[in-house]
Amino acid sequence: MAHPDEPDDRVETLLDEMTLREKAAQLAGTYVGTMEETQTIADATEMVREHGLGFVTPFGYGGSPHRDLSTVVEIANELQRVAREETRLGIPILIPIDAIHGNAYVEETTVFPHNLGVAAARDRDLVEQIGEITATEVAATGASLTYGPTCDVARDPRWGRTFETFGESPVLCGELAAAKARGMRGAPVDVAAMAKHFPAYGEPERGEDGAPVDRSLSSLYRDFLPPFEQVIEAGVEGIMPSYNSINGEPSHGSHYWLSEVLRDQLGFDGYVASDWNGVDMLHRDHRVTESQRESIRRSFTAGVDVHSLGEVDHVDHVVSLVEAGDINESELDTSVRRVLERKAELGLFDDPFVDFDEAAETVGRDDHREVALEAARKSMTLLRNDGGCLPFDPDGDEILVTGPNADELTHQVGGWSLTESDELDGTTVREGIETLVGSETTVTYERGAGVADSDDLDSAVAAAEDADAAVVVLGENWYIHEFGLQNVDGPADRFPNRAELTLPDAQRELLEAVVETGTPTALVVVAGRPLALPWAAENVDAILQAYYPGADGGLAVAETLFGHHNPSGTLPISVPRSAGHLPVRHNYLPHPHPIGADEHISSYDPLWAFGHGLSYTTFEYHDLSVSSESVSNGDSFEVSVRLENTGDRAGDEVVQLFGGREHASVVTPVEELVDFQRVSLSPGESVTVSFDVPVDAFDVVHPDGVSRFEPGTLTLRCESRTASVEAIHG
Amino acid sequence: MAHPDEPDDRVETLLDEMTLREKAAQLAGTYVGTMEETQTIADATEMVREHGLGFVTPFGYGGSPHRDLSTVVEIANELQRVAREETRLGIPILIPIDAIHGNAYVEETTVFPHNLGVAAARDRDLVEQIGEITATEVAATGASLTYGPTCDVARDPRWGRTFETFGESPVLCGELAAAKARGMRGAPVDVAAMAKHFPAYGEPERGEDGAPVDRSLSSLYRDFLPPFEQVIEAGVEGIMPSYNSINGEPSHGSHYWLSEVLRDQLGFDGYVASDWNGVDMLHRDHRVTESQRESIRRSFTAGVDVHSLGEVDHVDHVVSLVEAGDINESELDTSVRRVLERKAELGLFDDPFVDFDEAAETVGRDDHREVALEAARKSMTLLRNDGGCLPFDPDGDEILVTGPNADELTHQVGGWSLTESDELDGTTVREGIETLVGSETTVTYERGAGVADSDDLDSAVAAAEDADAAVVVLGENWYIHEFGLQNVDGPADRFPNRAELTLPDAQRELLEAVVETGTPTALVVVAGRPLALPWAAENVDAILQAYYPGADGGLAVAETLFGHHNPSGTLPISVPRSAGHLPVRHNYLPHPHPIGADEHISSYDPLWAFGHGLSYTTFEYHDLSVSSESVSNGDSFEVSVRLENTGDRAGDEVVQLFGGREHASVVTPVEELVDFQRVSLSPGESVTVSFDVPVDAFDVVHPDGVSRFEPGTLTLRCESRTASVEAIHG
Repeated sequence: MAHPDEPDDRVETLLDEMTLREKAAQLAGTYVGTMEETQTIADATEMVREHGLGFVTPFGYGGSPHRDLSTVVEIANELQRVAREETRLGIPILIPIDAIHGNAYVEETTVFPHNLGVAAARDRDLVEQIGEITATEVAATGASLTYGPTCDVARDPRWGRTFETFGESPVLCGELAAAKARGMRGAPVDVAAMAKHFPAYGEPERGEDGAPVDRSLSSLYRDFLPPFEQVIEAGVEGIMPSYNSINGEPSHGSHYWLSEVLRDQLGFDGYVASDWNGVDMLHRDHRVTESQRESIRRSFTAGVDVHSLGEVDHVDHVVSLVEAGDINESELDTSVRRVLERKAELGLFDDPFVDFDEAAETVGRDDHREVALEAARKSMTLLRNDGGCLPFDPDGDEILVTGPNADELTHQVGGWSLTESDELDGTTVREGIETLVGSETTVTYERGAGVADSDDLDSAVAAAEDADAAVVVLGENWYIHEFGLQNVDGPADRFPNRAELTLPDAQRELLEAVVETGTPTALVVVAGRPLALPWAAENVDAILQAYYPGADGGLAVAETLFGHHNPSGTLPISVPRSAGHLPVRHNYLPHPHPIGADEHISSYDPLWAFGHGLSYTTFEYHDLSVSSESVSNGDSFEVSVRLENTGDRAGDEVVQLFGGREHASVVTPVEELVDFQRVSLSPGESVTVSFDVPVDAFDVVHPDGVSRFEPGTLTLRCESRTASVEAIHG
Repeated sequence: MAHPDEPDDRVETLLDEMTLREKAAQLAGTYVGTMEETQTIADATEMVREHGLGFVTPFGYGGSPHRDLSTVVEIANELQRVAREETRLGIPILIPIDAIHGNAYVEETTVFPHNLGVAAARDRDLVEQIGEITATEVAATGASLTYGPTCDVARDPRWGRTFETFGESPVLCGELAAAKARGMRGAPVDVAAMAKHFPAYGEPERGEDGAPVDRSLSSLYRDFLPPFEQVIEAGVEGIMPSYNSINGEPSHGSHYWLSEVLRDQLGFDGYVASDWNGVDMLHRDHRVTESQRESIRRSFTAGVDVHSLGEVDHVDHVVSLVEAGDINESELDTSVRRVLERKAELGLFDDPFVDFDEAAETVGRDDHREVALEAARKSMTLLRNDGGCLPFDPDGDEILVTGPNADELTHQVGGWSLTESDELDGTTVREGIETLVGSETTVTYERGAGVADSDDLDSAVAAAEDADAAVVVLGENWYIHEFGLQNVDGPADRFPNRAELTLPDAQRELLEAVVETGTPTALVVVAGRPLALPWAAENVDAILQAYYPGADGGLAVAETLFGHHNPSGTLPISVPRSAGHLPVRHNYLPHPHPIGADEHISSYDPLWAFGHGLSYTTFEYHDLSVSSESVSNGDSFEVSVRLENTGDRAGDEVVQLFGGREHASVVTPVEELVDFQRVSLSPGESVTVSFDVPVDAFDVVHPDGVSRFEPGTLTLRCESRTASVEAIHG
C-alpha cells in the first residue's frame, strides 16, 4: 500500500470542506446491471455526478452485462472522470468487484481454481501468488477492491458457498486467507481486500444460504473467528459482515460483533462495508427493525461504515438521522475518514485511471495462467486408486471421455465467473486428454448424461465397451449462493441443491453403466462441495477429486490421469457418506455413548477423512518427536517427523500436524489441524519436517468465548505417528 | 405426596446420627442385571446391607432379567427388608425404574403409546391420567420413582430418543410434561417423578445420542428450558442432567446449569440424580476430569446430589473428598437431606413393602388399558387420504394385511418395554383388523418384508391383487438410545439408524409393489420418528401415522382404518422430505435469501407440517378475533375462533393457536405454537374456542438468555385465520 502509516492531509482537508450530504454519499454504493432493478451506466454516472456516491460496481459481478475488457476499462475511467471532474470536491469513487477466483467476470482474465481446491494444495506461497495476480488483474481493469479473501469456515457441505471457502479447518482457512491478503497487499498496483463474512457464515441452519448461525460462543470463537484474526493481522482494508444472524443478532446490526469483537477485541481499524442489501435485510428479512431508516441507524450504530447499494435513499436517511440526533456526526466523520483514507492509500486521488493497452497486456498473461494451472495441479486429490488403476497409459488404443463435466468450461470454473463457455478461454478435461495422449490413441467423447438429466447413455456405454480406459467426469455445474442463478441450469429444486449430496440418477446411471463394462474407469469429480459417493467408493477403480479447477483445470486433470503429474492434493474438508451423516468434521467434540460404544457408528465416519489424498508414490512417516517433555505457558515447542519417499517416483506430500488435549476443564475437540507443510521428495529421499508450535494453539476456549491456558497433556499426530508433551505453568 | 410441606423430624434426627460413610452411601445407587458388569440380587443386597446404599434398581429397566410380577414384588420387598432390618439406621432404599410409557419392563402391566404419539392427541387430561396410572402401577411393584417425565424437545429426528419426547414445540412439551407430573403427584400411592434430561438433550450434533448440544443461550432458553420451567412448577421431586455437553460443559459437571440456572433461576428445590454412569462419563468420555474421584468432586460441586450407579466406589471417594476438604460436609448434608426428605414424603419410612395380590390386581387393570387404548386412538394421525380412500369397508371380501409391523407386538410398543412378544399382552394391527371386519370378510396376512430384510414379497403382491383393500404396516422396530440393543435386531448400521430417515429397500419395495396392483392401499407407519416418505406422499392413497401406539395400539389402528374411530391426531413434529432437509421445524427463525427468494426452496418445507392431521369429517375456522386492540406488559388477552364441523360425521379437532412477532430487537421465530384445545363436534355443530394468552408468551429472548417484554405487533394464527394485537408498555 502507498504510505499506509502516513496520515493524508488531503483527507482532513476534504472532511472539513464536506457537507453532511457529501459525507453521507461517500458511505453509499450503487451498481450497473440487474439486481432487484436494472440500472444503466447513465444511472450510475448520474448518482456519482449529482449525489457524489462513493462506491460503484459497474462490472465484475454476476448482474452486470459488461464483460469485455475494453468496455470495462472505459466504464471505470468514465465513472472516475465524472467523480473527479464533475463533482464539487472531485473525490474519486472506489470500485469494488467480485474477484473471487481471479477477475473472472471479465473476459480474457486468469481464472483460478476455487478456494476449496486451492486449499487442497496446502501451499501458502501459491495462495500468495494467486492473491497478487488477482489484485494485479483487478487493478488493470480499473477496479480497486475485491470482495475477498473469504474467511468462512465450511461446516456444512449442503451450503452452496462451500467452494468459496478454504475448507473445514479454522487453521487452514486462516493461514490461506492471510496468505491471499499478503499477496494482494504485495501486488505492484494497489487493490484493497475485504475479508468476509464476519463473524460466522459457514454453518447456516439447514445448510441454507443466509440462514441463522446458532452456535455457542465457544464454537464461534474457536471455529469461526480464527481466520479473521489471522487476516486482520496480515492486513485487510475492509471487513464485510455476514448476511445471517448470529444467535439472534443479524451481523449487519450487531454492535457486539462489529464493534466490541471486531474493533475492540480483534483491533481492526479499517472500514466495514455491508454485503449487498445487507442493511435492508434487517427490516425486510430479519425483522429486527421496522423500516429502512431504522436499519440504517442500527447498522451504522453497530459499526457498519459503508452501505453497499445504499444509493440515494441512504444519503437522504443519513442526513435526516444526523439532523434528528440519531446518528452522531463525529461518528459519521470517522466512517468517512476511513473511506477517504483507503481511497488515498489506493492512490485514487493521484490517478484513478487505467489504460486499455496495459490492461490487455496484464490480464490473462501466460505467467499468470501458469500459476492457475499449477494451482489446479497441486489441488488434484486422488481419493482412491484401487490396484494402481491410475495413471492410465496415454498410448492405449482408445480412451473414452464422458460425463456432463468433461467438456463444459462453465461447469469447470464454477460460480463467480462468466457464465457462457464461449466467453471463457481454457482447457476442458476432454481437451486436456486429447492434448496428452499418443498420436495413435483415439479419444472418444460421449456426454452420456447432463448434470441433472439423462443424455445418450447407450452410446457412452458402447464406447466404454470398446475403450481401454474410461474417464467419467461428473459433478456440479455453475452456481452461486443457493444454487443460482436459475437461468444457468434449471429450477431451484433440481440438482445441485442443498438437500442432496449424492449424484442425481442420470449421473449415477452413467457411472454405474460404464463401470459395469469392466473397462478400467476413473471418476473425476468436478464440484463445489464434497459429494457423497458411497457406491463409487467401493466400486470405481480410481476417483480423482478436482473441485472447480479453473479455466485450465482440465489440463491438470489430464496430466494427473496420465501420470505427467503426481497428485498431492489433500482433502480440505471431510467427504460425508450421506447428508444424513452431517456434520462430519475432523475436529468434533468427544462425548459419551450412553448404551455402549458398540451400538454407535463412530462420530467421525467420513467416506474420506479431512487430510486424505493419495499419490503415485508411497510415503512413510518415522520418529515423530517433540523438542522437550514439557513446555510452559507462552512458550512454543518443536515437533519433528521424518518423511521418506518409499516409492519409485518423485512426489509431493503434505505433512499435517494434528493436535489435541487429553483433558481440559471444558470439552475440547478430539483433534484439530495445527500446522502443515508441503514437501517434495525424490524416490528414496527422506527429510525431517519440523513445526514450531506455540503452546497457546492449545488454549482452551471457554463458554464465554475467552481462551485460557491450561496445564495438561497435549497430544500430537502426524499420519499414524503420535507423541505428547506436557503443558505446564511457566 | 404425604405432607410435603411438613419438615420430617426423622430426617434431622437421622442426619445427626449418620456417619460420614452412611451419608455418602445414601447418595449412591446400584442395579441388578447386566450393565458393564452383571450383578445379582445377592450383590445388590450386599451393597445395601454392608454399605447402606440409598438407591437400587433391581428391575424395570432393560438390563434386568427380572420381569415377572411375583419376582419383582419379591425383590423389592426383600431389598427393603434388608435396608430396614439389617442396616444400622434402617433407612429404606429408593427404587427408581424406567417406566417411560407405563411400567413396561414388567409383565402384565399397562403399556401406553410412547410420548410422541401421546403428544399427537394434544390432550392434557389424558396425559394426566397416563401419569396417574403409570405411578399407580409403578408403586404396585414396589418401585418408588420413575425416570420421567421427559422434558426433552425433539429437534433432530435422527436422534434415537425422539419417540420419548412430546415433539418439537417447547410449549407442547412443557404442557404435557407438566400434565404427566401432575398425574403422578395425584396418584393414590406416592411415586416420585424425575424430569429429564436437563437442560438440553434433544438436538445432539449429527443426531447422535449423547453428542454435544451446541446452541446459543437464546436458543437454549427459548427452545429447551420452558418444559423444565413448567414441570418444576407442576412439581417434580427430581431432575436428571443430560449425558451430553452443552456448549463445552457436560451437564453432569456444570455448576452454571445445575446450580445457577436450575436452582437459582428456576427455583428447583428437589434433588438432582445423575443419569446412569453420567458422572463417570466426565473423565471417560467428555475428558473434563482425569479420574473418577475428580468426576465425583466436580459433579457434586456442580450440583449433582445422587450418583446413580456410583456404588461403593462413590462412597469411598466421597468420604475421602470430605476428609480432604474437597467437599464440604454441610453441602453433603444438604444433599442427604434432600434424599431422606423424599424418602419420608414417599412414605418409605412408614411402609416400604408391597403386596403381590394387590399388585396383581392393580397392574394392567381393564380401566388402565382402556386409557392406553384411548390414548392410542387419539394419537392416530391421518396424514393423507386421497379420494376418501379411508375408511375402508369392513365388509369387503378380502383384506390384505402386510408389512413387518403388522403383527409384531415388540415393534408396536417400541423401546423401554419388554423385548419379547410373548412377554407382552396386546393387540397387533392384524389382530385388530381381524376383530373388526365382518364375518364374511377374509383377512389375509403376509409379512412381505422385514424391517431391514426382504421376505416373501411375491406372496404379498399376489394377495394384494386379490384383495379389496390393502393395509401395509411399515416402520421401525424396538430400539432405545442409538438404535440398540443390537441383540434385538441386528448390527448398528442397519435400519433403523441415525443417518437414514427413509424406509429401507425391503419395505419400500413391498409398499411400491402393493400400490402398483391398483388395490386401494393404506400405509400405516409404526415408528419412533417422523420418517421421510416422499414417494408415499404422492403415490399412496392413505397414510396413517401410528407412532409406537402401545400394546393395544393395533386395535386403535384398525378402528381408525375402518371408521369406528374418526382420527384426530395432530403431528407433534414436522415430517421432513429427507435427512438432507434437516432441521425442519415450524418455529424456525426468518432470514434473508441473498440472491432472491425465487432461488430458495422454502426454509420450512416439510412433507407434512407440525400440526397437520386429517379427519373423516371437515372443519372450518371462522372469525379469529382478539379481545382488544392493544395489551400491556404483564397482561393477557383473549383470542377466540369459531370452529364448525362442516362434514357429515362427528369428530374431534385440535384447535392450535400459533403466534409470532412482526418485529423485535432480535430475530424471533416466524411463529410458535402458543396454545391448543381439543374439541368434539357433531356434524353441523359449531363452537367458539377461546384462549387466554399472557403477553409474556411473546417476550423476546436475548443473546444472554434473558427474556424481556418488547412492544410491537403480535401476530396470531389458527389454521388459515390470522389476527394481530399491539403489545404496549403498561
